[in-house]
Amino acid sequence: MNDTFLRACRGEQTDYTPVWFMRQAGRYLPEYQAIRGKVSFLELCKNPELCTEVTLQPVDIFGFDAAILFSDILIPMEAMGLKLEFHENRGPVFPDPVRTEAAVKQLIVPEPEETVPFVLETIRLLRRALKVPLIGFSGAPFTLATYLIEGGSSKVFLETKRMIYQEPTLYHALLEKITRCTSLYLQAQARAGAQVLQIFDSWAGVLTPYDFERFALPYVQAIIADLRQMTDVPIIYFANNGATLLESCKTSGADVLGLDWRLPLNKAARLAGNHILQGNLDPIALFLPKEELEKRIALILAEGKEAKGHIFNLGHGILPQTPPEQVKIAVEAVHQLSQQA
Amino acid sequence: MNDTFLRACRGEQTDYTPVWFMRQAGRYLPEYQAIRGKVSFLELCKNPELCTEVTLQPVDIFGFDAAILFSDILIPMEAMGLKLEFHENRGPVFPDPVRTEAAVKQLIVPEPEETVPFVLETIRLLRRALKVPLIGFSGAPFTLATYLIEGGSSKVFLETKRMIYQEPTLYHALLEKITRCTSLYLQAQARAGAQVLQIFDSWAGVLTPYDFERFALPYVQAIIADLRQMTDVPIIYFANNGATLLESCKTSGADVLGLDWRLPLNKAARLAGNHILQGNLDPIALFLPKEELEKRIALILAEGKEAKGHIFNLGHGILPQTPPEQVKIAVEAVHQLSQQA
Repeated sequence: MNDTFLRACRGEQTDYTPVWFMRQAGRYLPEYQAIRGKVSFLELCKNPELCTEVTLQPVDIFGFDAAILFSDILIPMEAMGLKLEFHENRGPVFPDPVRTEAAVKQLIVPEPEETVPFVLETIRLLRRALKVPLIGFSGAPFTLATYLIEGGSSKVFLETKRMIYQEPTLYHALLEKITRCTSLYLQAQARAGAQVLQIFDSWAGVLTPYDFERFALPYVQAIIADLRQMTDVPIIYFANNGATLLESCKTSGADVLGLDWRLPLNKAARLAGNHILQGNLDPIALFLPKEELEKRIALILAEGKEAKGHIFNLGHGILPQTPPEQVKIAVEAVHQLSQQA
Repeated sequence: MNDTFLRACRGEQTDYTPVWFMRQAGRYLPEYQAIRGKVSFLELCKNPELCTEVTLQPVDIFGFDAAILFSDILIPMEAMGLKLEFHENRGPVFPDPVRTEAAVKQLIVPEPEETVPFVLETIRLLRRALKVPLIGFSGAPFTLATYLIEGGSSKVFLETKRMIYQEPTLYHALLEKITRCTSLYLQAQARAGAQVLQIFDSWAGVLTPYDFERFALPYVQAIIADLRQMTDVPIIYFANNGATLLESCKTSGADVLGLDWRLPLNKAARLAGNHILQGNLDPIALFLPKEELEKRIALILAEGKEAKGHIFNLGHGILPQTPPEQVKIAVEAVHQLSQQA
């Protein structure tokens, strides 16, 4: 068992810097495409055997130091009683957005073992197969709420912010339900065997620090406080585009803070205090020629030395257009350069 | 003549904090819609009388302290010899993206008086009509390049970054031409009578500080250095989503740095040194109830006091859905609260 990643999450010394990539199981891999060619995205998410297979692919091919459960942050939202569709170009769509008191009242707080057993079964299958630690995950309540309120992806999040600004009571009622659902969901993942949990706040970066502290962070804190009652698995919180939110994130309760590529890790280390940092190569830097790519990786490793600990990752999910051979170069470079250093 | 805005740009004391809004002439105004109902967007941009009319509308209605020329940052790009279309939902489209040496070679560096006389004529008409200072503007070379390379708007800017990373010589050749075009364009605006110039780097925030300093900022510096040779008009540089770029921006040569809503002005003041700051209300905060909106404005005014000088603005363009009466409340609040303070 390679426990380098787990030990890095706990702030222990490691022989080299562990590395995994957000969306490492995904469309850039021909092996993934072969499976996706046979089933829809939602069918894949609900099939434990196939989920296990696509989760293992990048670990086997590239030697990543951690596996991340293949799923989607919106799976537990569907379980709250919402209709969810994935359109090939538009991404996720909730045809009936949640914008009224009646709509919030209708949402159920689902029991994971009953409503998303396939996720927990995938975790159990993976734990038997894996020789690296398994990361479970969820979306953060604010990010999940944006999809429910907007009815899908958004550019400016007008409907979400309008609810925050004009109907804060309704917003808090919705977030409170999403938070309870997410808390139970992550607890169930930990019980099923997830060894680390990451909370993705993909859209936190559209908020001012003022609003983030009032309308996003408290729900993350509540989930992490719940988790701390029942498990000691390390927790990673990733507030995307969150350079200006980092000082607030220090109170999230997470052990590890994820960073996109905008804030260099040495500067982040000064703001983040006693936290392990995870990141932060621009996913498109994977298109650099080998020598230049290695130079960027060396730079990030050097910056990461100023943090309490460093887990190498991209600053955002890997793009479908990424050449797999570049991923191989990057993973090897992280391992070799961090060993030498 | 109300020269409060001009004096604030020069760092002089003013009786109150001047305010204008990005996209203040635009779709949220029924008066604008009435004119836009008769002509296409590009026809409007090329008609000096109508451009003058829509530029004046928000100044007359709300008492803004500055007017900004109604135009689009891509107008001078069309003049480089490119086909430009505006689609109602997709936004701007260049049907023939610029991605090859041949395509870069074909671009001309246009003479503004010959190719965009309508812009300069609008400036002359506005100067006769206005009782507040007139802001001219351009896009920043990196931002303009993204539209040319991607063929329009983008989410992740894969083609742009791919060119930066894989064909830096081609990228620099393209940027060099765009920079010369933009420099001439802003010089012509100053000669025609623009009293302040703003450079919009709408997409700078997708770059790491490392790439920003190598592939975006030098072109802005070159344009500002050119302008300083021929005019002393104040220059505003707005690097959108640029919290992590602010320290680099100190060397842009601009007098005023614009900020989106993510970084509070008091923190920005500590990073920006001897610069006037412009910003930074979240455009969607205009949907707040009056009392809450005034509270947010008071907070920004208080934070702005820690800067060398402050010009109130939104952190991004006003949204088409914004109720005009909320704009009135905001402008009055800025004037009244900053006078008391």
